[in-house]
Amino acid sequence: MTANTASLKPADKAAHPLDQLSALLGDDMQHVNAMIIKNMHSDVQLIPQLAAYLIAAGGKRIRPLLTLASTRLYGDMGPRPYGLSASVEFIHTATLLHDDVVDESVERRGKSSANIVFGNQASVLVGDFLFSRAFQLMVADGSLDVLRILSTASAVIAEGEVLQLAAANDTSTSLDQYKNIIAAKTAALFSAACEIGPIIAGSGAQAQQAMRDYGHNLGMAFQIADDVLDYTADEAKLGKTVGDDFREGKLTAPVLMALEKANDEERAFWTRTMGELNQQDGDLATAKAILKRHGAIEAGLVMARDYAAAGHAALNTAPPSPLRDALAAVLDFAVERDH
Amino acid sequence: MTANTASLKPADKAAHPLDQLSALLGDDMQHVNAMIIKNMHSDVQLIPQLAAYLIAAGGKRIRPLLTLASTRLYGDMGPRPYGLSASVEFIHTATLLHDDVVDESVERRGKSSANIVFGNQASVLVGDFLFSRAFQLMVADGSLDVLRILSTASAVIAEGEVLQLAAANDTSTSLDQYKNIIAAKTAALFSAACEIGPIIAGSGAQAQQAMRDYGHNLGMAFQIADDVLDYTADEAKLGKTVGDDFREGKLTAPVLMALEKANDEERAFWTRTMGELNQQDGDLATAKAILKRHGAIEAGLVMARDYAAAGHAALNTAPPSPLRDALAAVLDFAVERDH
Repeated sequence: MTANTASLKPADKAAHPLDQLSALLGDDMQHVNAMIIKNMHSDVQLIPQLAAYLIAAGGKRIRPLLTLASTRLYGDMGPRPYGLSASVEFIHTATLLHDDVVDESVERRGKSSANIVFGNQASVLVGDFLFSRAFQLMVADGSLDVLRILSTASAVIAEGEVLQLAAANDTSTSLDQYKNIIAAKTAALFSAACEIGPIIAGSGAQAQQAMRDYGHNLGMAFQIADDVLDYTADEAKLGKTVGDDFREGKLTAPVLMALEKANDEERAFWTRTMGELNQQDGDLATAKAILKRHGAIEAGLVMARDYAAAGHAALNTAPPSPLRDALAAVLDFAVERDH
Repeated sequence: MTANTASLKPADKAAHPLDQLSALLGDDMQHVNAMIIKNMHSDVQLIPQLAAYLIAAGGKRIRPLLTLASTRLYGDMGPRPYGLSASVEFIHTATLLHDDVVDESVERRGKSSANIVFGNQASVLVGDFLFSRAFQLMVADGSLDVLRILSTASAVIAEGEVLQLAAANDTSTSLDQYKNIIAAKTAALFSAACEIGPIIAGSGAQAQQAMRDYGHNLGMAFQIADDVLDYTADEAKLGKTVGDDFREGKLTAPVLMALEKANDEERAFWTRTMGELNQQDGDLATAKAILKRHGAIEAGLVMARDYAAAGHAALNTAPPSPLRDALAAVLDFAVERDH
């Protein structure tokens, strides 16, 4: 259930919706990257070293792209979104660093994760630093509305992570609980990243609501599709291992949907494998077969498409432009990608 | 080198400078405690459970007391410092939670530490939550100056913790590096907690500078005295084990002063015990004997007293009042306590 921008890596770079979005934004992303590099700085060398290891490793920087696009969409062409986009990326990076410690991850974006290379201690502390730096960037911008939205999103993300921790290996988790978890741990920051665009542009409450809803629905669709891909993707295309959620006992949409239709034997299978983490060779293949039998993969994608449709409805209230079309394409890509 | 408000536990409760301070503040601390309890709340039950475990466990809440006192000292009697004092305590609590994970601590304030009871994962995430909640409280207050001071302090604390990590077991650490570490990891939050008082009271730049300096010097004196006590205190009075810094290889003022005067044999001793953490029975007693031989305990206390003197000089620019006298007494107590 790891939200991972690496999974947005394009098969065909030119045609990738995030690259199209970036192209429409001119050199905006270069300014954001410059802000990111500048604000990673600390006289304590381990901090920029570790931050650079993770940030320079790539990822598509979807969240800062969303902040930029949501600002430009409402006609503001000034420099204010640069610092705030960097702030959003720092919050995301801090949560990745802490997540990898919490999940005892060994890999991130195709490389050894920072906790493996630099240790848990440094990962926790540099996460704290980046989180603080994110707030310094918001303070430098000076909007209390932005500070309110991003501090609230940060608290909600932490709540979502704790909820996920509590739900791990619990096969009685409901689909509603799952939605609450991903709304908090993933969609909250997508939503906040989008909402601050119209705030910067001074476009009023309706525009804010539209972009908040677009971001929320994009985050939900993106995470559900990500969770489906963990059972369906081609490892080579995905660029990371599949079956991680199964091995870790993270109950996600496909399994929860299959659990609703499970017979006694299947329920015993899910309890043993994901509840008790007592797994044998061939269990992942069995899991995939059960998901297929109950149409759980398709049902997951339907759920993701419903969120995408709600995202389109919200986006359609924004002024039409090539940028709006590009944001719509991101929504479709989040669901329909095979990697 | 652990800053620990528990070490301010009074031998004689009535006479304790922090209790005297609290008494002068009437029911202010009850309001702050109510704000702390209210804002620990989350529908995710593990969050208030874990937060309550640590926060309810006590500690003298010196940082929120400082914010309250610094506000009242400048004549502001309104409710604004309640939320901001809670915010300061949340930042402190978040750093304690993360510190205990980073240090692999097993005890805090005489109880099993939260990472032992609730696990590292929950400690990291609830720390993140409290940190976010601290910023939500600042946003609710609405002062960008306060937000700037506390977000900067938070970044500096993280830098100090990373510096400390890098200096652990490094017997070539200089006294200046030690001072930089404690200025960041301890004094920065004391300083910020004090500086926001005159901001709330609207008392201008000179008052801000005075309280910033008072807080910085109090934090420095407090931490150096704490580091000395780790070699001199009576465990029963201190309420925690002594010798922790020695066992963990944290190079603090007394040892760094002894290292400056060390002969070859002593240098080999410090390198083996604190550099390589190759320790045997009797090593702590030997360490204490070497510190005594070089007058390193007394030299550490002289250094702490110098900071206390600078704190008095800063405080004396504030308007005289019983509250100012109580803040002066806290400064003396920080250095002269035997526990």
